[in-house]
Amino acid sequence: MLEQLDLDRSLEKDRYKIEIEDLMRQLRSLQQACWEKNLPAIIVLEGWAAAGKGGLVKKVINYMDPRGFSLHPIWPPTAEEKDYPFLWRFWRKTPHYGKMGLFYHSWYTHVLEERLFERVSSAEVPGVMRHINAFERQMSDDGCAIAKFWIHISKKELKQRLKDYAKDPLDAWRVREEDWKQVKYYGKYRTLAEEMLIQTSTGFAPWTLVEGNCQRWARVKVLQTIAATLQEALDRQHLRVAPPSVPPQEALEPGEPDILARADLSAALSRDEYKQRLKEAQVRLRELQLKIFKHNIPVLALFEGWDAAGKGGAIKRLTNNLDPRSYEVTPFAAPTSEEKKHHYLWRFWQHLPPAGKIGIFDRTWYGRVFVERIEGFATDVQWRQAYREINEFESMLSDRGYVLVKFWLHISPEEQLRRFEDRKNDPFKQYKLTEEDWRNREQWGLYDVAVNQAISRTHTPNAPWTVVPGNDKLYARVTVLETVIGAIATELKKY
Amino acid sequence: MLEQLDLDRSLEKDRYKIEIEDLMRQLRSLQQACWEKNLPAIIVLEGWAAAGKGGLVKKVINYMDPRGFSLHPIWPPTAEEKDYPFLWRFWRKTPHYGKMGLFYHSWYTHVLEERLFERVSSAEVPGVMRHINAFERQMSDDGCAIAKFWIHISKKELKQRLKDYAKDPLDAWRVREEDWKQVKYYGKYRTLAEEMLIQTSTGFAPWTLVEGNCQRWARVKVLQTIAATLQEALDRQHLRVAPPSVPPQEALEPGEPDILARADLSAALSRDEYKQRLKEAQVRLRELQLKIFKHNIPVLALFEGWDAAGKGGAIKRLTNNLDPRSYEVTPFAAPTSEEKKHHYLWRFWQHLPPAGKIGIFDRTWYGRVFVERIEGFATDVQWRQAYREINEFESMLSDRGYVLVKFWLHISPEEQLRRFEDRKNDPFKQYKLTEEDWRNREQWGLYDVAVNQAISRTHTPNAPWTVVPGNDKLYARVTVLETVIGAIATELKKY
Repeated sequence: MLEQLDLDRSLEKDRYKIEIEDLMRQLRSLQQACWEKNLPAIIVLEGWAAAGKGGLVKKVINYMDPRGFSLHPIWPPTAEEKDYPFLWRFWRKTPHYGKMGLFYHSWYTHVLEERLFERVSSAEVPGVMRHINAFERQMSDDGCAIAKFWIHISKKELKQRLKDYAKDPLDAWRVREEDWKQVKYYGKYRTLAEEMLIQTSTGFAPWTLVEGNCQRWARVKVLQTIAATLQEALDRQHLRVAPPSVPPQEALEPGEPDILARADLSAALSRDEYKQRLKEAQVRLRELQLKIFKHNIPVLALFEGWDAAGKGGAIKRLTNNLDPRSYEVTPFAAPTSEEKKHHYLWRFWQHLPPAGKIGIFDRTWYGRVFVERIEGFATDVQWRQAYREINEFESMLSDRGYVLVKFWLHISPEEQLRRFEDRKNDPFKQYKLTEEDWRNREQWGLYDVAVNQAISRTHTPNAPWTVVPGNDKLYARVTVLETVIGAIATELKKY
Repeated sequence: MLEQLDLDRSLEKDRYKIEIEDLMRQLRSLQQACWEKNLPAIIVLEGWAAAGKGGLVKKVINYMDPRGFSLHPIWPPTAEEKDYPFLWRFWRKTPHYGKMGLFYHSWYTHVLEERLFERVSSAEVPGVMRHINAFERQMSDDGCAIAKFWIHISKKELKQRLKDYAKDPLDAWRVREEDWKQVKYYGKYRTLAEEMLIQTSTGFAPWTLVEGNCQRWARVKVLQTIAATLQEALDRQHLRVAPPSVPPQEALEPGEPDILARADLSAALSRDEYKQRLKEAQVRLRELQLKIFKHNIPVLALFEGWDAAGKGGAIKRLTNNLDPRSYEVTPFAAPTSEEKKHHYLWRFWQHLPPAGKIGIFDRTWYGRVFVERIEGFATDVQWRQAYREINEFESMLSDRGYVLVKFWLHISPEEQLRRFEDRKNDPFKQYKLTEEDWRNREQWGLYDVAVNQAISRTHTPNAPWTVVPGNDKLYARVTVLETVIGAIATELKKY
């Protein structure tokens, strides 16, 4: 594929000057339009060492308004970054609505340079490609324009440029050991690049191959393509019609499984049995925590449930006996103004536990298909596609070694009412009860449908749901603990 | 000092139970009150290894509402964290208004353990103490309640506990090499601790010494003190009266230096001279950039100036020839809702350049004494105390090796008007001109006073201001570049 590129293509200086001036003006005005339309864009620059990426970046920076533009030069991952899924550091850098993010190297180094130097094994590659495609599709579905460039030069040109750089005292420091290896293993590197280009060129995030032997030609081609991509994204946004409003689903369709109804809400524990099993479980979890730490395994426990179902109490018993430095509890409420400027998964990425630690989320990304669906914060299309996005996200976590446990704490409407009344009368619990709780309660039926549907669509082998009968708090707490223990113990058998 | 503590103090189990239950209820309701009153709190736990900090933290966590509470277990700094001033990672963790941050170890490890192991030299210590006190005073002035605890145990007790831990398979991993060193160098460590306690016990952030041989006693004392601190802060907030409103200062007082008036606005360059000096400077800066990188020196260039004074253009010429991976331009506009929940310096900490890189801020913390003063976003007391806070902040940066350059781009009101009209008529520049620009223009006199006063109060040897005559853009751009070059070259002489 890359061999077929006509590397003799070139552009003479005079024409280049005219074209580049014109392109820059275009880009500037497109940037403004994107800003006004809240349209984010991701530009990826990849290619051989010394292919001219740096010079190109300089040109672009010079013309762009820095308020709507971020450059992300990507270095090898730090020790901290390695404790997370490889996309972690990139998700955190995704541009907010209206801004452009320019990635000077990107997530693709993970399947290219890392692979050449065998830091990523061949067995991992298909998974990585899948996660990359899912990531880019999720960005695109969220309205983001994406343009990716592979700047190609011949082996001869590469060698010559590296030699020239090495001679120049100002540039010598930039030539790394790895760059010379690109010359030595030119053929192998090209094969890896081709495989990557083929597997990750998609309709929503296509690669543009750029003939790079003539820098002027390459710059004009890249800038033209960026301009066309932005213009197309703006046009598409313009054409988008509001989805028809769908009436809320009040009850499950015949044949749809009612998973919540299967929970045995009469399940209960005597206080004595509770005390004994709680204690045993807490001691056991602490032992396991130590092993998690030793083996560098990340654990993520997700808590959802009816208001007043006892999430807080269950989380406390879960963490009660743990070393406070080994876990973190993150409660998620309504997104902040900053969070609203990003993909809905973005804020959860910020709080993922690193390898060796336990993360506990009080409310989760399932908000997309629960409250956001019911309150209309997400459109019909958005919450429907969220099932797939969530499954992709969780499968990536599980590929990275995360132990995932997901809880729905279940109670009956009568039990909820009893607890609301209790809270109303207890000065120390009053603050827990809000207007919103009463409003949600009126929508019990809508939530019942949404939760049932979400559970059946996202209950996967590596990220299973546990519906916890919660009318008896003691039973619920012990069940949560024992489920977490079971999941960790299963994972540890692999070691 | 520490030897005088009566380590035989103890509390029997029954009384402990009653007291602790009662304290926890108090704390819970105080936490709620703080949340409602937007009052942040910082709790610091320090003391010997195995002094019982972990158990105490568990107790507190169990009772606190996680939505208003964060635990920060502090580990040795990562490689990334070492590339910033030592307070960097703590500033980023300061609680937002209404929340409580519990630091399990803190910035004090920097003057204690780091010092024992000679990672921090004695010569650095006085500066570090000064920066710590300034940090805590700034937090306190911003309304934050602070309680700090030193949990003290005897050498015998320390040794026994470490032995017990080492025997227990669940606890053995927690005993570090460094902990045994505390036994070996008990006396030396105690002396260092005493010095630290004496130098950093202040009215706004006092240390509480806690007799820790009896854990029950220690817990009750710590919790009592936290409760008292929060209560006092709430009372103080209640008592606080709105400061009298001060009429804006329309003109400088006789005798106040008019620094801006001294700028020679007729300064100009011919296009030929501009081209030559610009080119020379850009090449030179690139050479220096390489040296900065090699010596791991951080550089921070701050840009302030009248609207349309040419900040953007000057920044572009500054970065034009630099490697895009070596610098970052951060524009600061009005703070976001998240940023508004923190001390005004907080958002600048988030964007400091690390060692070896150049950070360029388009608008800066001087907003506190310019726009916030003039628009009344900061009270009279707040913007007046900001001079000191800014000087402290900049001196800490300079102690950490930052090269600081601060620019005021100066133009005449007539020149500004000419440029506004230009922008109005140029479709590519229209977006740069806002209603706010016209409104600011009407307040030229107020800004003139504020800028003059800020410059004379914050012009320090290690963080000097340069007032750049900007009526001629060419002259201004070259001056900016040459000033940055001069500052870096001066710093490099030390190497």
